[in-house]
This record gives sequence, C-alpha cells and structure tokens, in this order.
Amino acid sequence: MVTAAVLVIGNEILSGRTRDANVQFLGAELAAKGIVLAEVRIVRDDTAAIVEALDALRARYTYVFTSGGIGPTHDDITTQAVAAAFGVPVVRNAEAERRLAERYGRDLLNAARLKMADTPEGATLIDNVVSQAPGFRMDNVFVMAGVPSILQVMFNGIKDDLAGGAPLLSRSVTLAAREGDLAEGLTRIQDGDSTVEIGSYPTFTGGRSLVTLVARGTDAGRVDAAMAAIRTLAAELDADILP
Amino acid sequence: MVTAAVLVIGNEILSGRTRDANVQFLGAELAAKGIVLAEVRIVRDDTAAIVEALDALRARYTYVFTSGGIGPTHDDITTQAVAAAFGVPVVRNAEAERRLAERYGRDLLNAARLKMADTPEGATLIDNVVSQAPGFRMDNVFVMAGVPSILQVMFNGIKDDLAGGAPLLSRSVTLAAREGDLAEGLTRIQDGDSTVEIGSYPTFTGGRSLVTLVARGTDAGRVDAAMAAIRTLAAELDADILP
Repeated sequence: MVTAAVLVIGNEILSGRTRDANVQFLGAELAAKGIVLAEVRIVRDDTAAIVEALDALRARYTYVFTSGGIGPTHDDITTQAVAAAFGVPVVRNAEAERRLAERYGRDLLNAARLKMADTPEGATLIDNVVSQAPGFRMDNVFVMAGVPSILQVMFNGIKDDLAGGAPLLSRSVTLAAREGDLAEGLTRIQDGDSTVEIGSYPTFTGGRSLVTLVARGTDAGRVDAAMAAIRTLAAELDADILP
Repeated sequence: MVTAAVLVIGNEILSGRTRDANVQFLGAELAAKGIVLAEVRIVRDDTAAIVEALDALRARYTYVFTSGGIGPTHDDITTQAVAAAFGVPVVRNAEAERRLAERYGRDLLNAARLKMADTPEGATLIDNVVSQAPGFRMDNVFVMAGVPSILQVMFNGIKDDLAGGAPLLSRSVTLAAREGDLAEGLTRIQDGDSTVEIGSYPTFTGGRSLVTLVARGTDAGRVDAAMAAIRTLAAELDADILP
C-alpha cells in the first residue's frame, strides 16, 4: 500500500484566520492515484515542531507533502527546518536563483527574495509556473507553497513522478434518512465485504435529515455490489434516494 | 501558557470528500480565550491511529478537542478508542440514554442509537442541544461531533469551563505590495518586539499582489505599536493600504 501524510505549516491556519484548502485538494488527488492519505498534521511556524512532525511522518509513510513557509519573509522557516530534519546545510540553488533572477531582474532580487533560492543540500526543485519560486524534494518529502493556487501547480508538476497504487474508486448516494435507522443494515453490508469501506455522513439541511453513504475500494465490481446493497437497504426502509 | 490540540477523526476529510470546517472554528474560538492551538492532527477511522494521536496530544497540551466518529454507525469508533486510550471500559451512560429516549421515543431507540449513550467509564457529558446525542469529557479531552453545527453548539456549551489565558489580540492590514519588498522591514519590526507575532500572508487576486500583515499579541499597546510600524513601512515603500 502506498501511503502519504500532509504536514501543514502555518500559524494562520491554527489561529483560525485562514481555512486550509490544501488538505482537501491533496486528499482527492492522492486518492485518485491510489495513494492513501493516512494522516495530516498542522503545526505552528516553529522549527522544533516542524522537525519533530516531519521526522515522525517521513519515517512512517511513503510520501510526505508539506505546505507553507517557503516565502521570503521572517516567518517562512520551512526550508531551514527541513534541512535540520535531514541533518544537512541550507545551500543556494543555482537553478532556483536563475529562475528568480529571470522573474524579478537583478535589481529586485534582494536578500529576502534570494532566500527563496535556498534549499537543503541535495534537494531537487519542484517547478512553480505561477511565481517561479520553487518548492523542492528531499528524499520522500515534497515541500510546497501554502498558497493554494501555487501548491496546486506544484503538485500537478510532480504527481506523475509518484508511485501510485490501485486507484481508489468511490461511489456515493444520498438518502433522506436518519443514520440510526440505517446503521444496522450498514453494519451488515460492511461486515459482508471488508475490502470496501462504507462511510456514513449525516447532514441536516433545512430541517431535513440526509445521509450520504460512500463506498470506496479498488475493485469496481465489489464497490458496485456494496452500492447495490445500500440501495436495497434504502428500499427496504422506504428511504428516498436523492437525485 | 494554556495550550490545545485538535484531533480530527474521519476518512472523509483525508479522502478529500469533505473540507474540514472545525479547525478554523476552534482555532478562532480558542484564540479569543487566550488558548494557543498548537497542533492539529487528522487521522483515519482506525482505533490504533486514534489512540496513538490522542495519547501524544493529551500528554503534551492543556486541552485536546476531538471531532468526529461519535454517531450510531459502524464507522463511528471514537468512543471505543478514547476508552482504550484511557484504559477504561465503555459503559452505558444513564443520563445520555434518558436524553436519547426523550428525543426518539423508546420505539426508535434501537441498538445503533443506544450506542450514542455509551461513554468511557468516568466521562462527563457535553450537551448537544441540536440532536441530543451528547459528546463527553474525559480528563483534558473533549470529544465532540464532526458535523460543524453540532460541534459548534457543543463547544459553546463547554467554553466557559476552559481556563483561558490572556486573550490574543490580532490586528491586520492588507497592502498592495509584494512580500519580497516588505521582508527586510518586517524582519526589523519582528526583531524589535518578540512578544508580538508578525505574520505575512500573500494572495494573488485578479493579477494583483496583495499581502495581509497580521500582528498578534496579548499586550494591546505593543500590538498597536507593531501595526503602526507596519503602516510606516508601507508609507516608506509607497505601498497602498487597502480599505
């Protein structure tokens, strides 16, 4: 099984100022490649916290994707922290400097911007077609920007390099029903095939109880069979299926 | 310093199906109470993963808030996992059962719904004025629903019981500028007062580079002084301040 973790770095997420968007993007992209996103951690802009989380995650999962903290300002400390985790120095990457010089011109390429050309020694660059300042890869760790539009182009540039597993297929249906009425039948369906993961997600919309049921697995026939069983259950319970 | 962690439990967040909303809500609420949200973990619906994360977080932070996995279906395993982490059995809570019986009537209170009356031995209930099925507290761990509207009423019911710190004040300003031009001046301002945390958050909107600068601290005079220094920097650099 190919697994992954995401490490989100940023006080702005933890303070509630910003609602993270990168976990959802990466979760969906990884699932489509058959890579199981098994864990996410969100830590503050603090070197020790970043190093500790990174070391725990990179030892355990096939891939680690980080978001945030690679810009030019004082609170951007991810590069230093990744270098510390790998026990290597931070060095100026000539190719990254060339790209930044091309974007900004030598006049505007001040010390702060040049910081974005620094990587841990041994890193390879991740392209940034939006604003040039690259991300980088160290071993199984992919270091990307926090701004969602930039993280997305960075990920799109690397995703073909990732070893995927069997793509995770997902089917869902939404019923006008209450979870408590479905639960016994769902347990029976789940117990009948442990290779398909049945998820049950209630919402309350306009005073109406809805439940979205999701079947996920790598075998299309088994996923479809689980969905058929869910539809039969809905019919038995006289629960409307939403269009 | 009063600290907290959030543990989000749910495959639907990790698969990208659902975008988490609870971290932002809790982050903002905790900051307003002077509690530093220091870490978030998101784990799958897996007992071992929940227990491991919970044990790590509850040992390290003043409070831990969990979201998700306390409903009636087979994939709701948080209560069992919390009991396992604390080394206590799961028991039927008579008051929780009374509330569920009042809501559903004895006829509809089937085995699945009764599962929502189970808590780890020694837990105290967290009220749920939306749908009655309670959350619970074990020691420094607060176990809440994943549905945002329910998590929010649960948190509102417990927040007065939390020991807060000095409320974290936050001021922000958005400049039409690029981070690389501001970075040197921001470093100077940050170095001038370590009690105020200066955050710099770039966005690219309609082809325009904007930077939101946030000053956070517990001393209003120092936060205001940092913001004044940021405004002076903006003026020096001829950067427009957005209304």
